[in-house]
Amino acid sequence: MKNYLNHDEWCIIEEGFHADWNEITESIMSLGNGRMGQRGNFEEGYSGKTLPGNYVAGVYFPDKTRVGWWKNGYPNYFAKVINAANWIGIQIELEDEKLDLANCHVHEFRRTLNMKEGWLSRSFVAMLPSGKQVGVTAKRFCSLTHDEGGVIRYCIKPLNFDGKLTIMPYIDGTISNRDSNYDQKFWQEIHRETGFAEGYLHLTTVPNEYGVPQFQVVTGQKFALYKDGASFPFQALPVKQEGFVSSRIQLDVIAGEEIALIKYACNLSDQNHAREDLLAHAKTYLATMAEKGYEQLLREQIEAWAQKWQQMDIVIEGDVAAQQAIRFNLFQLSQTYTGEDDRLNIGPKGFTGEKYGGVTYWDTEAYCIPFYLSTAEPKVARNLLIYRWKQLGKAIENAEKLGFTGGAALYPMVTMNGEECHNEWEITFEEIHRNGAIAYAIYDYIRYTGDTAYLGEYGFEVLLGIARFWSQRITWSDERQQFVMLGVTGPNEYENNVNNNWYTNYIARWCLQYTLEVADQLKNTEAERYATLSQQLQLNEEAEFGRFQAIIDQLYLPESKELGVFLQQDSYLDKEQILVTDLRPEDRPLNQKWSWDRILRSPFIKQADVLQGLYFFEDEFEEATIRQNYDYYEPRTVHESSLSPCVHAILASRLGMDDKAYEMYLRTSRLDLDDYNNDTEDGLHITSMAGTWMSVVKGFGGLRVKDGQLHLSPRCPQQWQSYSFIIRFRDNILDVHVRPDGTEIENIAGDELTVWVHGENRSIPAAIVEAPEEE
Amino acid sequence: MKNYLNHDEWCIIEEGFHADWNEITESIMSLGNGRMGQRGNFEEGYSGKTLPGNYVAGVYFPDKTRVGWWKNGYPNYFAKVINAANWIGIQIELEDEKLDLANCHVHEFRRTLNMKEGWLSRSFVAMLPSGKQVGVTAKRFCSLTHDEGGVIRYCIKPLNFDGKLTIMPYIDGTISNRDSNYDQKFWQEIHRETGFAEGYLHLTTVPNEYGVPQFQVVTGQKFALYKDGASFPFQALPVKQEGFVSSRIQLDVIAGEEIALIKYACNLSDQNHAREDLLAHAKTYLATMAEKGYEQLLREQIEAWAQKWQQMDIVIEGDVAAQQAIRFNLFQLSQTYTGEDDRLNIGPKGFTGEKYGGVTYWDTEAYCIPFYLSTAEPKVARNLLIYRWKQLGKAIENAEKLGFTGGAALYPMVTMNGEECHNEWEITFEEIHRNGAIAYAIYDYIRYTGDTAYLGEYGFEVLLGIARFWSQRITWSDERQQFVMLGVTGPNEYENNVNNNWYTNYIARWCLQYTLEVADQLKNTEAERYATLSQQLQLNEEAEFGRFQAIIDQLYLPESKELGVFLQQDSYLDKEQILVTDLRPEDRPLNQKWSWDRILRSPFIKQADVLQGLYFFEDEFEEATIRQNYDYYEPRTVHESSLSPCVHAILASRLGMDDKAYEMYLRTSRLDLDDYNNDTEDGLHITSMAGTWMSVVKGFGGLRVKDGQLHLSPRCPQQWQSYSFIIRFRDNILDVHVRPDGTEIENIAGDELTVWVHGENRSIPAAIVEAPEEE
Repeated sequence: MKNYLNHDEWCIIEEGFHADWNEITESIMSLGNGRMGQRGNFEEGYSGKTLPGNYVAGVYFPDKTRVGWWKNGYPNYFAKVINAANWIGIQIELEDEKLDLANCHVHEFRRTLNMKEGWLSRSFVAMLPSGKQVGVTAKRFCSLTHDEGGVIRYCIKPLNFDGKLTIMPYIDGTISNRDSNYDQKFWQEIHRETGFAEGYLHLTTVPNEYGVPQFQVVTGQKFALYKDGASFPFQALPVKQEGFVSSRIQLDVIAGEEIALIKYACNLSDQNHAREDLLAHAKTYLATMAEKGYEQLLREQIEAWAQKWQQMDIVIEGDVAAQQAIRFNLFQLSQTYTGEDDRLNIGPKGFTGEKYGGVTYWDTEAYCIPFYLSTAEPKVARNLLIYRWKQLGKAIENAEKLGFTGGAALYPMVTMNGEECHNEWEITFEEIHRNGAIAYAIYDYIRYTGDTAYLGEYGFEVLLGIARFWSQRITWSDERQQFVMLGVTGPNEYENNVNNNWYTNYIARWCLQYTLEVADQLKNTEAERYATLSQQLQLNEEAEFGRFQAIIDQLYLPESKELGVFLQQDSYLDKEQILVTDLRPEDRPLNQKWSWDRILRSPFIKQADVLQGLYFFEDEFEEATIRQNYDYYEPRTVHESSLSPCVHAILASRLGMDDKAYEMYLRTSRLDLDDYNNDTEDGLHITSMAGTWMSVVKGFGGLRVKDGQLHLSPRCPQQWQSYSFIIRFRDNILDVHVRPDGTEIENIAGDELTVWVHGENRSIPAAIVEAPEEE
Repeated sequence: MKNYLNHDEWCIIEEGFHADWNEITESIMSLGNGRMGQRGNFEEGYSGKTLPGNYVAGVYFPDKTRVGWWKNGYPNYFAKVINAANWIGIQIELEDEKLDLANCHVHEFRRTLNMKEGWLSRSFVAMLPSGKQVGVTAKRFCSLTHDEGGVIRYCIKPLNFDGKLTIMPYIDGTISNRDSNYDQKFWQEIHRETGFAEGYLHLTTVPNEYGVPQFQVVTGQKFALYKDGASFPFQALPVKQEGFVSSRIQLDVIAGEEIALIKYACNLSDQNHAREDLLAHAKTYLATMAEKGYEQLLREQIEAWAQKWQQMDIVIEGDVAAQQAIRFNLFQLSQTYTGEDDRLNIGPKGFTGEKYGGVTYWDTEAYCIPFYLSTAEPKVARNLLIYRWKQLGKAIENAEKLGFTGGAALYPMVTMNGEECHNEWEITFEEIHRNGAIAYAIYDYIRYTGDTAYLGEYGFEVLLGIARFWSQRITWSDERQQFVMLGVTGPNEYENNVNNNWYTNYIARWCLQYTLEVADQLKNTEAERYATLSQQLQLNEEAEFGRFQAIIDQLYLPESKELGVFLQQDSYLDKEQILVTDLRPEDRPLNQKWSWDRILRSPFIKQADVLQGLYFFEDEFEEATIRQNYDYYEPRTVHESSLSPCVHAILASRLGMDDKAYEMYLRTSRLDLDDYNNDTEDGLHITSMAGTWMSVVKGFGGLRVKDGQLHLSPRCPQQWQSYSFIIRFRDNILDVHVRPDGTEIENIAGDELTVWVHGENRSIPAAIVEAPEEE
């Protein structure tokens, strides 16, 4: 736990430079716009502790995966999120000295991430080894309105000397990943050119062995200079260097004079443009940006962010730390994924670090979709569903590699393009519950939006592939005279290769049921489409649906009648029955202190497992059952996954356990800001941020959708005076304000509607202002 | 399956050059002497298919182990058996043409491994691209009497031309491993020198990150030349090249004249000599060898091998293929480990390939010790036990890394120096039954030799460490009201992370019992030593032995009363009950055709598991029980481990299932000669060769030791006329000759003794000849 950042409702502020924690601050102060993003690195470079990171959405390298001993069926490669060309670079020299904060006395340092307006600023006074002092103020943003571009205003003022100032705005393609094997470089130059006050670097990822197309990106820069606010003539000499584009500008400056550099940059990828047009496009793109100019782009940025906040903001009164935390979570999520592009997804580190391969985990379906459903237009969640629909073919191939047939689909645990790229057998091959979450997300989307047309268009194909997988993966046990599911890893990754994981069995059965229901529904409402699909998918209704039904009827679900709980897996009760409170502080976190085998045979649970099922399917259980399972499992759960506390927070709220809910909320919301797990320097925990949102809206707010209507059961944590959240529900946008003594709901957009509050229906009058037009 | 090598009782003969299978032949024709060894590579070099391999015992490199995702507790490095300097090199040039069989027309090619005398020869006529023809005959051996050295006689005769012949005997230290990451080199030069007709290369392994000392080896060569059998003056020009030592000799030769090169070589390692003396030693060493000369060294070699054969030979009449096979197994085992050095062990590939890291597996205790007990002086098996005793400290450290305390010892799955160097959690952390085999080997050794003094000297310390491990690893189940062992991998590696593997539970319980018995015995017979040990090992008898006894009394052992079998693990019966006969041919071998998860949840068994326990502890079970388990498990076993068939062969013989026993014998004995598993090119399956011996002597021969007496129950496979084997038992060496109509036992050395044959005691008269003196 660290606590060096100022608490503020809208900003993250570092006052005074914390060099030792710079990599943490860089993670926290990351900027993005859905298409590109970078960490809070210094424009002028820095020879101290820093993890340089610039990322272009969808661009990766299929790196070798190495394991001690290869298992048959392992994926060939690990999809590495690669560091792309550094576009923020502005080298500064004062006479012969390079400005590098690692070698300066730094004072008046302040770094601010303004979440309301979507920019990062930095100001400081630096004394160089020679004694020269300069003042610098820099501000930059990744533009939401020009989402392949970013802008920097970098102002430098000599404070105690006259002399030569050299400014070299640059693009550096010679970067590498920190986690590369043998410092492998992933980029090579195709072309570079430098014009007056502009330059372009055309890079391609290096060839790979796995048939993955190479990516091409053109990174460009265009800049203007101002002296005390006015433009002036200057010379810019091109710098010739492989993989590097820069112009060198030498100025004679006098003390007190401010030189401002405005740098426009862009990253155009061949995922969005024809390769042959990349360069020309980049030139046009930057010309457009430069024409608008810095101030106009900044105004657009502030406006775009205001619109975003209008749709998702959560206001907490009486707790600045909590207020800052929830906004930080919302801000970072929104920077990572905008829902504009159905080929993209939400990487667990977003644009904030290079750890973890791939960008798509089951986090998206289980944690992020509810957030986007309530805070963005339906197309955002829909695009996330379509992303999986597009990868259905790969999911079928993936299942075939493991011996499944006839269109059975196993979605990957980790992927970029639909291919599995994780290589631990206990995860890749066995953590198959992910397939369930992907089906559940379809259900969740339709329940929330009412968009049943999605089923005939896309949903049923995915559901059938998933159901087919379960029907083959589940086998008959002569011994039990029931169907069983052997050799799985549940959401609790602290148990591997177990039999009959309750959660996996339950969601598998649910998938089969839901698939049959959807088939029935389509038959009744879209008979023709259903007939086409049946034929296309070579569906043998009698045999396949018969098997589905047999499994639904006879699937084994482990439970202990004596304890009144569902059993996480067959052998859970064979474990030593000790609790988290029995652990010594020096044993925590288990995943850093205990060997893997010890963790595996301990009763300790990494994250919600049985409880994840009770969260998903709460309507199918009595409250007493949920309570009994919560009371049994929570004391055995170490919450060592960032995805754990939010589910517990929601259930605790549901059960009226307010203190527990608040405790869990705290664990999730300031995880990165306070570097709770000592790993924020690697990047932020992006997907679990959606869980933070859930713990407020579904937890404290008690949001549910039943029979097409909105239900709330708001509870106000005693630590807060009040809180409010914005949610979009079908044609309405609502502002829900919760106080200890009651809940107000205001219609911001849309007609009158009925909302159920604590089980009582309430009519919310139509919005007074007009709803913003849909895009 | 391949069948290109001639069947012969004493030799392995390749007639005609099989270039495509050269790597297989190189493996099969490997030579070694316990201290060094090399594959059957060509002296003159070869640009075709070849896996160059030269190995020095005990020398390795701690290479990075890479896994997709690191687990806490994983070992840091993978101990790689590294290719050492190539000492057999003799480059041949005819005028400007290099002799390279890949570019020649080759005829009259014959390569012979003479197992009786311990040498490898090769002869051929080669026509070079220019049309020049040469005849070559080469013979070499790794000397048993000078076991840091080897000798080559390489004769070359121009057949159809007069001209220049260039001979360059060399030592090449610029070799690499085929399985290196990024072609990493593991050796670097410290010093090299070339004298007249001699040269020395002093190498060190490159530095490593893991604190493992670097190894140093001096490889030397000394040579002499003969023309038509007589020495003659020649000039030898030193070749100057980094990491390479050679002399260049140019001769004018005429057709029909034979030039013979005798090359003496040595590999002296700093494991056996002070570093500063290595070079001087090498010079003396080679001088001594050269002084003796080729013929004398060869005579010594033949004599040494004759002595070896006298102690271990198995003669099979009426089946040349079976005869050749068993001798091949015995020969290769004997080359790998001689028992001279208690720091060495028996690598699964011996000196025949670089696959697998480390040299010590549980194979040594479970498979090799019985072989050495019966075919070598007791000190050989004793040294193998002491090897583990010496590594007890590391085994305790290893257990500590996994959270065990108080002197609990977990021996590594794979090691060079006692440190674990395997990095699959399901093996490293969970395949802990290895600990049982190490205890069992102590029991086996004492039962066979009667050397009870070993217990007080070394054995008890190891047993107590192992027992302490089990007593902590086994936990109490409230649910069962019994002790259980969770999360293990049994000998059947086709199931991972299972609970209550019957074999592991059984051998763990046995270890606890045996440790208590030994403690009792020591208390009675060596009270003082026991008191010292108790103190030294901080033994708390009451608490520790109390816990041992509680576990012995209440350990759960899974079984099915209905089926009348022990259950391989708790959930075995939940699996689909299909048999190996239900598999399609295209599914085999499973480990190449099925994904890992499919194998794991299938009922198919890689190698003896429950049956391994019944083999170890057969006296504790009724024959009917053994039969019932055999009948149940064998049809579920795919024998995809080279260690599987031999155990089945022994049990089948025990149960009178002669055809099954013979089938299993065939699977094990010609595994490499016929390239049964299509992997002989990587090297030979050395440790399973001891299993082949067991399948004859313990299987067909029915050898057992009970109450200090030898028991035999010989059965003669109907495919054989007769067979005989030599065994050493305490002070006697016996020749057992088994015919369909009876068994003759002859005392080769030692006094009269009683042997039980098929349950009837028989008195064997004292040997007529005097027993060879013990060293």
